[in-house]
Parts: sequence; structure tokens; C-alpha cells
Amino acid sequence: MTAPGAGPSGEDALIARYFKPLATDPGAFGLLDDAAILKPSRDDLVLKTDAIVEGVHFLSDDPPEAVARKALRRNLSDLAAKGAAPAGFLLTLALREADEAWLTPFARGLGEDARQYGCPLLGGETVSTPGPIMVSISAFGHVPPGSIVHRSGARPGDRIAVTGTIGDAALGLDIIRGGAAASVLADNAGAREMLVGRYRVPQPRNSLAKAVRDHASAAIDVSDGLAGDLAKLCAASGVSAAIDVASIPLSAAAAAVLARRAVGIEALVSGGDDYEILCAIPESRFDAFAEAAGLAGVAVSSIGIVISGASEPKFLDAQGRDVPLAHLAYSHF
Amino acid sequence: MTAPGAGPSGEDALIARYFKPLATDPGAFGLLDDAAILKPSRDDLVLKTDAIVEGVHFLSDDPPEAVARKALRRNLSDLAAKGAAPAGFLLTLALREADEAWLTPFARGLGEDARQYGCPLLGGETVSTPGPIMVSISAFGHVPPGSIVHRSGARPGDRIAVTGTIGDAALGLDIIRGGAAASVLADNAGAREMLVGRYRVPQPRNSLAKAVRDHASAAIDVSDGLAGDLAKLCAASGVSAAIDVASIPLSAAAAAVLARRAVGIEALVSGGDDYEILCAIPESRFDAFAEAAGLAGVAVSSIGIVISGASEPKFLDAQGRDVPLAHLAYSHF
Repeated sequence: MTAPGAGPSGEDALIARYFKPLATDPGAFGLLDDAAILKPSRDDLVLKTDAIVEGVHFLSDDPPEAVARKALRRNLSDLAAKGAAPAGFLLTLALREADEAWLTPFARGLGEDARQYGCPLLGGETVSTPGPIMVSISAFGHVPPGSIVHRSGARPGDRIAVTGTIGDAALGLDIIRGGAAASVLADNAGAREMLVGRYRVPQPRNSLAKAVRDHASAAIDVSDGLAGDLAKLCAASGVSAAIDVASIPLSAAAAAVLARRAVGIEALVSGGDDYEILCAIPESRFDAFAEAAGLAGVAVSSIGIVISGASEPKFLDAQGRDVPLAHLAYSHF
Repeated sequence: MTAPGAGPSGEDALIARYFKPLATDPGAFGLLDDAAILKPSRDDLVLKTDAIVEGVHFLSDDPPEAVARKALRRNLSDLAAKGAAPAGFLLTLALREADEAWLTPFARGLGEDARQYGCPLLGGETVSTPGPIMVSISAFGHVPPGSIVHRSGARPGDRIAVTGTIGDAALGLDIIRGGAAASVLADNAGAREMLVGRYRVPQPRNSLAKAVRDHASAAIDVSDGLAGDLAKLCAASGVSAAIDVASIPLSAAAAAVLARRAVGIEALVSGGDDYEILCAIPESRFDAFAEAAGLAGVAVSSIGIVISGASEPKFLDAQGRDVPLAHLAYSHF
């Protein structure tokens, strides 16, 4: 991403106008060069890339600010789950046209989030596409050497904890589509708005990164659904898990929809787009983790326990009976 | 990009099958985690992101190996022009379907280039799209602290040098489209193949990176056309330039097409996709630069001189007359 040289290029002018104001880090060189730098650090640099596609990960009429925030925050959520502090990001934006009415709020949302999360725009580019808008971001973070939190460290006996609430984003998407949740909440505009907001603008748990790094044996961000992401964490760790379904944290709105049987628990735990942190915490560290989470202002819930074995994680009801889940997570292919 | 956990996801299986074999760097964690790491270094980390879109930057029937190589090599070319040694890359691949006949050669080409250029796959992801295939890569390189080569350091009196030959890729695209160059070279399959190859598979000048770092006052990779990229370098440096058109290095095939007036010089210097390095070299260092380039096995040509002023770079014929260029570079918008 480069601001205008001689200015023959509309692409350069676009970048100068909308994105140069975001490039406040000295390593971005004001987007006036062909590449950016990160200065040497004693830390490991954590690297993550993630893209969202119009019509797949966001809707054509989603507000452009929200699209920008979702694109960046999906990456920030991964950094948080790995215990990393944000350092900056690169943006690639594929557009059909340089539409000011879309780009202005997009850049504003992106800039506000970059400041809020301390994750400056370092560089990037715009490309034209005849197809859907795509926002591809590579984000970088720092962890002390060797302290990245893997998927693979969970051990039998560890508690399984999750932040925030699960299933809200899936319900938000259902509401946008006029699904069953919309009917149940027809008289509750506030609840509908909250759920739609959870779909459109994730709330990554970056303030919890240090607590995860200090205490978790394994962690993953919940992006493809709690059940599927838990299965990935367990498989990577060579363990299984027993989840107490009643302990899965739900918002009041989600609990109301569930109570009315408008959707089942499966839709909530496999819906995706939660951007919460799922982690395994050794029993001896759980109190310290919970205290650190409290200081960080992030709600955490203990929802089960790591058990030995290679079977799929079990979801158990209050009577200890299996709650069958037909499919665990959203898959693109 | 994550290899299969519990394996509920076709996306994960796709990544495991095609891309895990490429993730040889220990910091990639075998694509088994949610993020990668780069270990601390005393060097500055150079960051570049670049994407190619089907139908815009490559053609639907381009060989998948070539698409992969072009996607990575465009980034490698930027690293070379900035004086950086490759350290690794992240991949985001947007696909309509998981087509084995396309993915197998794509991954093979990508893996071969990653090895050849010492730039390992660190991570990434696949996403589904209803639109054109898009390959977005973020590449990383190392330079000693403070030694990145900017666009902005050219000073009046510096020589302007360019590597390799200019315009071949533009002619290659013209040939694929059955344009005038195809007619001129109808009897010369070897020349046609060379030019098409230059369009499909760039030859980035990474072996020249150290010489650029050691000697160049400014550099840029020639991706949007020599004339436009020179204009950007000059504008960033606050200078102008006088280019001797007869000194612009052309392949024998390009020279033949030009001699037959099938295309004009403008098409060659504004065509783009050259992936050569354009740099300014202080006169006192030019011999040392040329010697280093010779040792690196890269042809360099002196094509003009940096002059003071803010005017557009001048392209001059053998009689010192301006060669007018109507448009300087390809722009997406």
C-alpha cells in the first residue's frame, strides 16, 4: 500500500486518501514506500492471517464500519487466544470500485479499532475484483520467547473455560435473515440489536491475553463454533473433554430464545462467530486465572473438564446424558 | 491455516493435505495451531502484502503452478527491492471449490518456490468465495536495522539502473490475447514462449538484495511499469530523472517486436509485471554495484540519471528529444 508518488494511479490516490491517516506507526513510513518494518524485539512475533468475503463472512448491506471492525477483530481474537499483544497489521482490500460512500466509513471503523486495540496499520494494498469484496488482514503480535499458547497443551484434569457468552452471533445472523429468533424476540428490540451487533462486530478478548499466557495450558479462539473449536483443541492436545451444557454461558437473549425452543443448543454451540476464548486451565491455576480475568474485566465460565481419550468431546445434560450434536462447526468446503 | 484437529472441517482437511507439507519452518507449528511465530532477530522485519485476482492479475487458464509462483514472487520482488532477505510468508487463498486438479499443482509450485527462495510457508487460511480466485500473500524479510532501501533516497546525479529486461511480460500478455506481438513472432515459438513465461512466472531478483542494500540510494520493484514506478520513486525522492530510451534493456524478442513497430516503446515501459528492480545508485558506487550484480548473476543496465526538479521523469530519444508517454502505469481504479 503506497501513497501517491507521481500520482498517476487512482489506486495510490485511494490509499492516500483513505488509509494514510491510519498509518501512524513510524514503521509504516506513511504508506509512502513499498513495504513496512517492525523494529527488532526480544519477543517472539506471532503471525496470523484471516480474510472475510462479502456474502460468506459478512453481508453486502452490513455497515462498512462493521465490516472493517470484523476483519480486524477476527485477527485480534486469534492474537488474544495465543496470549499475544497486538503489534500491527497489513491490509489487502479487494474492491469492485472505489466507492467513497463505502470506503469512508470502512476506513473510519478500521482506524478507530486500530487505535482502540493498539494495532496500527503498517501497510497493504487495494486490488480490483469483479467479484465480492474481500478484506484480507495479516496481524502481528508479541509474546515473550516461547510463551505462545498452543492448542496442544491441554491435559486431563484441566478445567475448560470460555469467556463471555456463546451463540449470540449465530442468533444475530438468524435475526438478520428473519429466522426463528427474530419471531421470539419480536417485542424486544434491544435484545435483537445486541445479538445482531454480536454478529456484526466481534468483541475480541485482548485484555485477557496475559492471563491466558500466564495460566492456560491450551487455548483457541471460538470462531467456528464452540463444539468444533473444542474438538480441535482436544485433538491437538490428544485428549477429550466433558462439557456440562448447563454451564455454557448464554446471554439473557440467547437463553430466552433457547427456552422458547426457537433454536436448540446445537445451533448455539456450533454457530460460530463468537470470538470468545476457549482455554484449558490446570486446576491449580484456575483461581488465579479467574482473578486475572476479573481484573481484565472479562467474564469467564468454567464449562467442563479435560479427560483422557481420543473420543469427540462429550456434551452432557444435567442428568449426565449425552447431548448429541450432529455437526460441530461451520466449514467452508 | 490449521491442519485437522478433530477433522470435522473440510477446510482443515484441505489445508492438511495440500499445504502442511510446505510448512517446514518450526515457527509454522506444522499448521497445527492458530498462528505462527518468527523468533526474535537483531534485524528489522520487512513486511509486504500483495494479492492477485483471477481475471485481473492472472488468467483463469493460467497453469496453477504459475499462479502460485506469481503470487509469491511478486512479494519476493518487493523484498528484493527493499534489500531484504526472505524470512517466510502467510497465505490466504479464496476458492470457489476445493478442486484437487487445481490445488495439487498450485501447492506444488508454491512449495518449490518456497524452497528455492528460502521463504517458507508460515501459516494462512483458505476461504470460500463465489467470485474469482484470489491469492493474498504477506511476506516477511530481514534487513540489518535501519538499512531498508526506501523509494525516497534518490539524489540528483545518481545513476538510474534497472535489472534484466523491460516489457517482456506485457508482450507475453499480448501474445496470450492474440495481439500484434503474436503476429510478429508467429514463426518464433521460442520467443513467444519466453515472453509468455515472463508474464506468467516473474523472476524476482532476490540475489541482488544485498547489492541494492549496500549501494542504492533508492529502489522500487517494477511491477506497474517502468515509467510509472520511476515516477513514484522520483516523487518520493523529490527529484526528477532523464532516461535514455535507447538504454532501456530489451530482450531480443521485445526488440524484434519493437523494430517491426507492432508495439511502441510506451507499451513496454508502461506495461507492468516486469518484477525487475529499478534503483538509484550514487555515481561513486556504480562500479561497485555493477560488480556486485555481476557476482549475483543479475544483469543491470544504466538507463539514465536523477536530475533535480519536480517534473515528471523525461524519456529522451537518441537526439535528446522527449518521447511522450500518454499514461505511465496500470491502475486498478
